[in-house]
Amino acid sequence: MRFCVNNYKAFLLKTSNKLTIINDPIYGFITIPKGLIFDLIEHKYFQRLRRISQMGMSYLVYPGAHHTRFHHAIGCLHIMRKALEKLEQKGVEISEEEKQAAMIAILLHDIGHGPFSHAMENSIVEDVHHEQISLQFMQALNEEFNGSLTLALNIFKGTYDRPFLHQLVSGQLDMDRTDYLKRDSFYTGMAEGNINTDRILAMLNVKNDELMVEEKGIYTIEKFLVARRLMYWQVYLHKTSLVAEQILVRVLMRAKELTQKGVELPASKPLAFFLKKKNAEGVFDKNALEIFATLDDYDIISAMKAWCTEGDFVLSRLSKIIINRELPRIKIKKKPFKNEFIKAEKDRVQQQYNLTEEEAGYFVFTGTLTNQAYTFKKEAINILTKKGKVVDVISASDQLSLKALSKVITKNYICYPKHLN
Amino acid sequence: MRFCVNNYKAFLLKTSNKLTIINDPIYGFITIPKGLIFDLIEHKYFQRLRRISQMGMSYLVYPGAHHTRFHHAIGCLHIMRKALEKLEQKGVEISEEEKQAAMIAILLHDIGHGPFSHAMENSIVEDVHHEQISLQFMQALNEEFNGSLTLALNIFKGTYDRPFLHQLVSGQLDMDRTDYLKRDSFYTGMAEGNINTDRILAMLNVKNDELMVEEKGIYTIEKFLVARRLMYWQVYLHKTSLVAEQILVRVLMRAKELTQKGVELPASKPLAFFLKKKNAEGVFDKNALEIFATLDDYDIISAMKAWCTEGDFVLSRLSKIIINRELPRIKIKKKPFKNEFIKAEKDRVQQQYNLTEEEAGYFVFTGTLTNQAYTFKKEAINILTKKGKVVDVISASDQLSLKALSKVITKNYICYPKHLN
Amino acid sequence: MRFCVNNYKAFLLKTSNKLTIINDPIYGFITIPKGLIFDLIEHKYFQRLRRISQMGMSYLVYPGAHHTRFHHAIGCLHIMRKALEKLEQKGVEISEEEKQAAMIAILLHDIGHGPFSHAMENSIVEDVHHEQISLQFMQALNEEFNGSLTLALNIFKGTYDRPFLHQLVSGQLDMDRTDYLKRDSFYTGMAEGNINTDRILAMLNVKNDELMVEEKGIYTIEKFLVARRLMYWQVYLHKTSLVAEQILVRVLMRAKELTQKGVELPASKPLAFFLKKKNAEGVFDKNALEIFATLDDYDIISAMKAWCTEGDFVLSRLSKIIINRELPRIKIKKKPFKNEFIKAEKDRVQQQYNLTEEEAGYFVFTGTLTNQAYTFKKEAINILTKKGKVVDVISASDQLSLKALSKVITKNYICYPKHLN
Amino acid sequence: MRFCVNNYKAFLLKTSNKLTIINDPIYGFITIPKGLIFDLIEHKYFQRLRRISQMGMSYLVYPGAHHTRFHHAIGCLHIMRKALEKLEQKGVEISEEEKQAAMIAILLHDIGHGPFSHAMENSIVEDVHHEQISLQFMQALNEEFNGSLTLALNIFKGTYDRPFLHQLVSGQLDMDRTDYLKRDSFYTGMAEGNINTDRILAMLNVKNDELMVEEKGIYTIEKFLVARRLMYWQVYLHKTSLVAEQILVRVLMRAKELTQKGVELPASKPLAFFLKKKNAEGVFDKNALEIFATLDDYDIISAMKAWCTEGDFVLSRLSKIIINRELPRIKIKKKPFKNEFIKAEKDRVQQQYNLTEEEAGYFVFTGTLTNQAYTFKKEAINILTKKGKVVDVISASDQLSLKALSKVITKNYICYPKHLN
Repeated sequence: MRFCVNNYKAFLLKTSNKLTIINDPIYGFITIPKGLIFDLIEHKYFQRLRRISQMGMSYLVYPGAHHTRFHHAIGCLHIMRKALEKLEQKGVEISEEEKQAAMIAILLHDIGHGPFSHAMENSIVEDVHHEQISLQFMQALNEEFNGSLTLALNIFKGTYDRPFLHQLVSGQLDMDRTDYLKRDSFYTGMAEGNINTDRILAMLNVKNDELMVEEKGIYTIEKFLVARRLMYWQVYLHKTSLVAEQILVRVLMRAKELTQKGVELPASKPLAFFLKKKNAEGVFDKNALEIFATLDDYDIISAMKAWCTEGDFVLSRLSKIIINRELPRIKIKKKPFKNEFIKAEKDRVQQQYNLTEEEAGYFVFTGTLTNQAYTFKKEAINILTKKGKVVDVISASDQLSLKALSKVITKNYICYPKHLN
Repeated sequence: MRFCVNNYKAFLLKTSNKLTIINDPIYGFITIPKGLIFDLIEHKYFQRLRRISQMGMSYLVYPGAHHTRFHHAIGCLHIMRKALEKLEQKGVEISEEEKQAAMIAILLHDIGHGPFSHAMENSIVEDVHHEQISLQFMQALNEEFNGSLTLALNIFKGTYDRPFLHQLVSGQLDMDRTDYLKRDSFYTGMAEGNINTDRILAMLNVKNDELMVEEKGIYTIEKFLVARRLMYWQVYLHKTSLVAEQILVRVLMRAKELTQKGVELPASKPLAFFLKKKNAEGVFDKNALEIFATLDDYDIISAMKAWCTEGDFVLSRLSKIIINRELPRIKIKKKPFKNEFIKAEKDRVQQQYNLTEEEAGYFVFTGTLTNQAYTFKKEAINILTKKGKVVDVISASDQLSLKALSKVITKNYICYPKHLN
Repeated sequence: MRFCVNNYKAFLLKTSNKLTIINDPIYGFITIPKGLIFDLIEHKYFQRLRRISQMGMSYLVYPGAHHTRFHHAIGCLHIMRKALEKLEQKGVEISEEEKQAAMIAILLHDIGHGPFSHAMENSIVEDVHHEQISLQFMQALNEEFNGSLTLALNIFKGTYDRPFLHQLVSGQLDMDRTDYLKRDSFYTGMAEGNINTDRILAMLNVKNDELMVEEKGIYTIEKFLVARRLMYWQVYLHKTSLVAEQILVRVLMRAKELTQKGVELPASKPLAFFLKKKNAEGVFDKNALEIFATLDDYDIISAMKAWCTEGDFVLSRLSKIIINRELPRIKIKKKPFKNEFIKAEKDRVQQQYNLTEEEAGYFVFTGTLTNQAYTFKKEAINILTKKGKVVDVISASDQLSLKALSKVITKNYICYPKHLN
Repeated sequence: MRFCVNNYKAFLLKTSNKLTIINDPIYGFITIPKGLIFDLIEHKYFQRLRRISQMGMSYLVYPGAHHTRFHHAIGCLHIMRKALEKLEQKGVEISEEEKQAAMIAILLHDIGHGPFSHAMENSIVEDVHHEQISLQFMQALNEEFNGSLTLALNIFKGTYDRPFLHQLVSGQLDMDRTDYLKRDSFYTGMAEGNINTDRILAMLNVKNDELMVEEKGIYTIEKFLVARRLMYWQVYLHKTSLVAEQILVRVLMRAKELTQKGVELPASKPLAFFLKKKNAEGVFDKNALEIFATLDDYDIISAMKAWCTEGDFVLSRLSKIIINRELPRIKIKKKPFKNEFIKAEKDRVQQQYNLTEEEAGYFVFTGTLTNQAYTFKKEAINILTKKGKVVDVISASDQLSLKALSKVITKNYICYPKHLN
């Protein structure tokens, strides 16, 4: 390169395009605080989130669902600041350092997500969970920014001694959920999942450094939980998204399997790295992290487009299923499907397309879905009564409905190719 | 391949996932008519629009602007049906064939758009305009569907003898503009550009087979034109989007230039095809069209990601500018910039980074912006007065403001790298 | 009068001001069908609903809640038409007569409401229920319009042999509830009560002439019931509205009591008529109906304003409580209040203000609140499964939450004047 | 009365019903500051605004337009606080006293409005303008609250030495207009008049103690002015509202005329007072002010209801026109109507109904409408450029459209009874 690194920053060309106010279709103007938070957003680790979709394959069902993890993280930042301001107005003392750290913690809470994260974690990077990667990115940034993220890290990990700050980042009523329910509902057009962020924030309070909801907010919380359950069944676990994601998992599994056997598949450099990499002990080394930081939706989709014409039948067929939206049949039932039924479908596919049993398993497969809107044992939502008592939201409500929301629902599914007529 | 093409359709696996109702965040439920329209939407030529962003580089300014041409086309289909229903309720006779054809014409009006269309047309496919490609796709589909798109084609081309149907597809108040202003305003969060689709549709009428706006709709039209102008200056011509798009044009120009010189750049098959292709006589042959049908945003962005580490300084620098959002400085003025100023900037860059004059021109360049909300000479918006007369919207209005909207505004810009401190 | 009745119609002066399109903040444009429906809306029986607030005293808590029964009825008309259109699109055959009759039935379903209806029915017109008055108005209109409301009357009464038409007018998921939940939520700003009308209408179907909800609409229904319960507890039974309404009941009771004893109170003619009238056998005679047709909110509020300075302490005090918004204390508990507590409060007030025990009862009183979002025994919401079976919404849901919604909740309240410090 | 005034406060019964958070359909939660502002809202002078409609007769055209001056004043309070907060964030120093005073000034800016204010000022209280009454109420409250409204009064009158505070209360871009455009657009459903309050507030700044709009807000301002003009023509000057208001003026004029001649008309005490009162020197004495404080919409509408059956033909006919919504014909033209035409209509009415010429003038009358969205001479909207210069919005814009908005438009109208067929 005819270009010396020292000049790089100078050449960056930017200055006048600093985005300090962002237009958000949901909250209106979002002001980005200057300084550390602004610099973190400008960092390439964070800018990469612009190329990672928040809802993975859901756009095949909800064509509006193309919003990114970048946008969600910015939204979280915004409502975290709002929440902290509300709490301060109610007399909760929060220092400037704590405020900045809480905002950083929520801004970066999902920075470890890769493209189609849940599919990836079930295929090519199954050994390293996105929370772990988020932590590693935050630690790397903490080094780069000379330790100024230490408090944010402690809040993120839950080791800081004022638990409400962690609870705002990660809990049953955290800013992450508050933003994504709102945002996903907005972009999918699934109006039933819409929640009233302003009201939720207005109902928060803190007692003994624990996050509380004021008693009058009980219906707001109930509506939040109902909306959440609804989004699960109608959106996140929508059978068509589900089948698309399961096929994606199998595309990636197959690609890794072939790569490990020595087949050279077309793939971008970062994707090729992870297809070749042996899975290991739950963390990334420095090199893997740096390469992971360049992996996004474009690597995955581009690869699948190229794989549509690859020689391996399983890989090309599965890729086409997604690229051309030719999705298989899926059935959902309360009870598990009978082994005979599964076997018969596999046999049919195996015979019809001349596949091995293992290959047929890429097209005929089963699984379970589970959903629980509210877990009342762990991380309860605490209600602060008018008289100053703290009770769990379930005992505070005089309704059975919240109890109902804490029930675990499990369903079974099977996917298989359509029968010939 | 162990797989015979005759079996392909059977293997398509689909059936139960037909999307006949689509959730749209803007209009709510959109019902897709079964039959020909449904089949066109399922076609891979149309499904590819799911991977082509409506607003190109604008997401670098408006992080919500990730909606696709697929979504816009579906939205157009919806309001076209609404518009036709409204006109029928007012007594305009429209046959079932005409209705279907008008819906198909609007559904497919933009099918020829490639990824980052405006940038592409100014770089690697500069010889073939997207309207031409739309027409070629429609003709190809017409063949595939045994001539059933003939009326739609005539409406699209404006050769059908009831002009209002063409005017609904392409005119100053067509369903294309009506949807994209609404949709772009929604996804960017630029509330000032929001228009009231229901009111616009309610004001439409037809006289002598020409599209009219009823007199009481004059303020609605005025607001539509004001909103349109506003979206131009604040969104479509936003200086940061503009600079990003201009850089993208130069990335693609440079890549084509290098390729034509024999340099092998990493690129997907369809992109490689267009980088190698000599530009020609304004149409695609069958092969080029088929390859164009597989080209989308993922090819372009993935290539730029790979080019960030290519040896050519110009190509790698320009690619990084976009991928890492390190945009150059842009200035906008009414008067043209002085030659001395441009020259001085070029010299600076040339010298500083050891570039040729031609190479420096990739980083320092000028251009003009132009915008006119309403052209009153060609394709006027006709107002139908209560007494049944037809007048142009400008003379119907007692305001100067519409006249103002028809004035052409031109501005000059210059882009150049930031100065060293 | 120098004015002969025959000339009256000619002198009506109107013509060009016919409102055939109404702007509704909720649904946008509402088109009023010409002919009978338009004439019914223009009728003074219906125009009077412009002066009757939908939510009574609620505006003392929710300052936006000033919408009228006129507006609600127009909204019902609109969504009834939408619902009928949706059903027709699904293949349900509905004749033009049936459509018009169903629209008339819903338009007039509440025409018998007087001002502050619930308070009135518990005080000065306690013998005649508003449903009865609606029926009488409809019968009077049927006479005036030469029998053209006969089918509408049958649908209203539930005697027509296609039950779904009655169910759309009056049932657990009727157009009345669908509009008032939406409208009351909108005007109070109680966003949690917002429901998605479009989705509800899109989910309706008919089987064996009974109204059904399609299976995929189960979450929509659940959200409807949750929203309804929420509106009850947070709005309709809001303790401040409740106390205001209870005071209003007592103002009217006291005024009637005094009038019956011969005291001449300032009151408009129609109000004076009902204060003097002995309560009787559950129906109005023709004269009473005609006078009732001129009674509205303005009579009640104006009278209370005048009564603020009347000699009777109980009447003037109660009137001031409302007019100047000086509301008493109210407590709500699950268990009934103890007799000793009630007695002590009464004694205190009696002694302090030198009242009789009976008079003290106007200021210290108890009662119960009850609410049940869904009654599953009577008028169930039927779910039509994909396979064509009909099941009750509760058994169709795999959630406990709907069962919870059908539980009856009862609460006790006490109102009493504030203690002296 | 058996009731001593000292006990009054104790008996007020209130305490637990203090509304410190108000639900607003437009802004969500509005928090009322405790202390002086809260006490002013609770004052009966202010509570009376609950019974005064913001938009007078407009509900006859827009059935949703029943919002009150109370609600508007609360809305103004809210956005004033928001505006002050925004300015502080931009570094404008504003003391706590100034903030409270500015909020009080906007809260009370319209407190002098009577029922159907514009009609009243053109009939029974034509000598005293509502601004004068607002000032008198504020002075009375200042006395009652021991001088604590002095600064608010100075801001209201424009005598305080920091002009931007007055400009926020009363100017071309004040919080009054900002709220009423938004609110009236919301309640009428006239979506075209909707403005983006958040954006307007975000664009405000202060230089040399004068209110400014930042340069980037120029399109926001333009949209504000366009929306304002639109609301004038489509809502405030809607011909049906206009005719209703003109008839109301004549009802009140006739009632006053008859009263002054000695006719005893049914009327509430406060209305009777003003019908009897001779008009005088532009101010109210203390007694008149106190009585005015008890006059509201209920007095006017109730009186008209009673007057429908009065013996005077002009009074009863005009009253019925409003109560039963039987409005006369109105024509609007750019040029004045010819005298012959006016004369012919008057003759027709005079002869047909046996009226005097003067009486006929109550039914046939002419007038002019005028509207100007922006006055650029007086109280300009100042734009603060990026370089810190201050220019008028018109010269800052490169569009003719703003110039157009400053043009005065005048139209002529005539009202007359429908012709007999």
